[in-house]
Amino acid sequence: MTDTFSRSGASPPGSRIVEPTYEGDFVLDGSLPLECGRSLLCPTLHYAVYGRLNAARDNAVLVCHALSGSALVGSWWPEIFAPGAVLSLERDFVICINMLGSCYGSTGPGSMNPETGEIYGPGFPLVGVRDNVMAQARLLDSLGIRKLRLVLGGSIGGMQALEWAILHPDRVERALVIGVTPLSAMGLALNHLQRQAIQHDPEWAAGRYLPQRPPRRGLALARQIAMISYKSAPLFDERFGRNPNRSGEDPWAADGKLGGLTGGRFDIAGYLDYQGQRFIERFDANAYLAILRAMDTWDPLRGYASAQDAFSRIKARLSFIGITSDWLFPGEEVRRFAESIRQAGADADYREMKSDHGHDAFLAEQVELVRLLQ
Amino acid sequence: MTDTFSRSGASPPGSRIVEPTYEGDFVLDGSLPLECGRSLLCPTLHYAVYGRLNAARDNAVLVCHALSGSALVGSWWPEIFAPGAVLSLERDFVICINMLGSCYGSTGPGSMNPETGEIYGPGFPLVGVRDNVMAQARLLDSLGIRKLRLVLGGSIGGMQALEWAILHPDRVERALVIGVTPLSAMGLALNHLQRQAIQHDPEWAAGRYLPQRPPRRGLALARQIAMISYKSAPLFDERFGRNPNRSGEDPWAADGKLGGLTGGRFDIAGYLDYQGQRFIERFDANAYLAILRAMDTWDPLRGYASAQDAFSRIKARLSFIGITSDWLFPGEEVRRFAESIRQAGADADYREMKSDHGHDAFLAEQVELVRLLQ
Repeated sequence: MTDTFSRSGASPPGSRIVEPTYEGDFVLDGSLPLECGRSLLCPTLHYAVYGRLNAARDNAVLVCHALSGSALVGSWWPEIFAPGAVLSLERDFVICINMLGSCYGSTGPGSMNPETGEIYGPGFPLVGVRDNVMAQARLLDSLGIRKLRLVLGGSIGGMQALEWAILHPDRVERALVIGVTPLSAMGLALNHLQRQAIQHDPEWAAGRYLPQRPPRRGLALARQIAMISYKSAPLFDERFGRNPNRSGEDPWAADGKLGGLTGGRFDIAGYLDYQGQRFIERFDANAYLAILRAMDTWDPLRGYASAQDAFSRIKARLSFIGITSDWLFPGEEVRRFAESIRQAGADADYREMKSDHGHDAFLAEQVELVRLLQ
Repeated sequence: MTDTFSRSGASPPGSRIVEPTYEGDFVLDGSLPLECGRSLLCPTLHYAVYGRLNAARDNAVLVCHALSGSALVGSWWPEIFAPGAVLSLERDFVICINMLGSCYGSTGPGSMNPETGEIYGPGFPLVGVRDNVMAQARLLDSLGIRKLRLVLGGSIGGMQALEWAILHPDRVERALVIGVTPLSAMGLALNHLQRQAIQHDPEWAAGRYLPQRPPRRGLALARQIAMISYKSAPLFDERFGRNPNRSGEDPWAADGKLGGLTGGRFDIAGYLDYQGQRFIERFDANAYLAILRAMDTWDPLRGYASAQDAFSRIKARLSFIGITSDWLFPGEEVRRFAESIRQAGADADYREMKSDHGHDAFLAEQVELVRLLQ
């Protein structure tokens, strides 16, 4: 979800990038048991840290990234580190860990399964949001970090932040949960469409594609489907309207490249195509499927007798942030979700970010987000 | 767009079907010049009529169908004919004409091009909304109908209804334009996604597929993408929520059919799959592309100096109907569109249909629509 309306470059416009103090791998000792019943043997967590852990070890902050993010939070969320913003390189020790299932260094479908010596591919198990949180806790243990001053994230990152507060109530002081609830039926529908776009690509080959021959068109279409849910209709109208594609194409031409059934593209189509192309250069199709499944299956109440049962465990102070134009996770739904958690006795407030950027606002309008969090 | 939440049958639940008085073909004499510069030689219009033309020939009503509709308005919009509803078989002579480009009897990409003796396929030209209106006028001429008491339609049918009032101001007394404006950037985006879903299917074969080997998976995915824009998030939540698929599947299972990257489906996914499968049994992929293009390119101002110039031509009394939960053509946008037409001097009112059914409400909640139109 790190994208702007610029058609070149990957970082937010005008932003400096914050360099990590350290970036490396942590290999879990032994097996990580998974909620689905399977396990991962000695999985790797790729992570980055910013700032320094203090002597009391009480200045740790965990940032959880979204679907297509990486451990390099200083690259995709730099404004969070701006002077006086949410995080401080002087005060905080910030950790960001690439999700299991991803393709940015942690174990995922493209990794070798040490039990078989072969690439996981479609055999990669369901690694859910809770599984990630359990793995992250083991990495923090290894760093001698018992308590988090703050855990925060947007989208599936926010799912992790909340699970941290539920699964490890004594380890979290404060959590920021941004633009997220358990996926609604519409959210599940959008993921179902994206999954099919990838799996219908003949190059997907039931998940056993070669790295040099991935299902590019399918992944690009999946990304385009996602983009319409990350942005908003008013923003699209403002930026693209019904303009012909800026490269100079005529939607009213008698014939397009493929005859009369297609014409020149509108500008919004050129934009979506560009976003799809950019994405396939940086993301893996099976990793995408793995994380979609983690997102689909996240239900913080699963396994508890009631909402009361799950949410009354929480000791952290929670803030939920909704985005006015978000239709993947509507602000009003985030507000109601926060309210249900408050009613279970947790300390939870709700704040709303006014933005036309839709779900993507927490990445696209960082300065605005920081203002709301201050 | 004729679908319900039932998983069998194609007609609205509990509705009788109204049988046409006559159903047949009209072959245009000579050439139909098209706005894109090309022409169609002797195209066929398949049409159905209901009731009888009176001696004064002043009781004609034209119904324009939506993307996947047919000339059989009595099958897909039966409640419009209910006693005391919008149309009366005793009073009115109702005509419905299958759109050019469609696959329900009128000339489309699957028809033979009389100039070459071959199937048009991807060579089928851009036949826009105005081209359809011009062709429909020639059919009405042949029936001796000079004036329409009423022209009405939803979605691309509403585009046609409005174009009738603009292109033939002396022939239309009243028009009902339901759930439509020129496509917004988001609407263009959704059509772009659907187009790619079809064109990425290897069976599409650049539009030259054999009728017995069509791009089924691509068309099914296109339909599923469309379905999310026809319905609403609240309706999906109410009907499907986060339930597992009713056929009995486990979204949390360690492995699905294709390994751990996929699991059992949620109910919304089962619903969408079912809608996709149902659709490929009744619709043609190239016809779908042809009508998407007609929808994309419709701009009632194209070729006029100003909105004033275009809309001040209108002599008909217009009513615009928006649907509260429609996010493909939001009610508020329909209201603004109606207002812009009113400001150009036309007689245009706006009415709003309260429904959770989204864009599809004009087909899914016909009784409610009739109440609003009475």
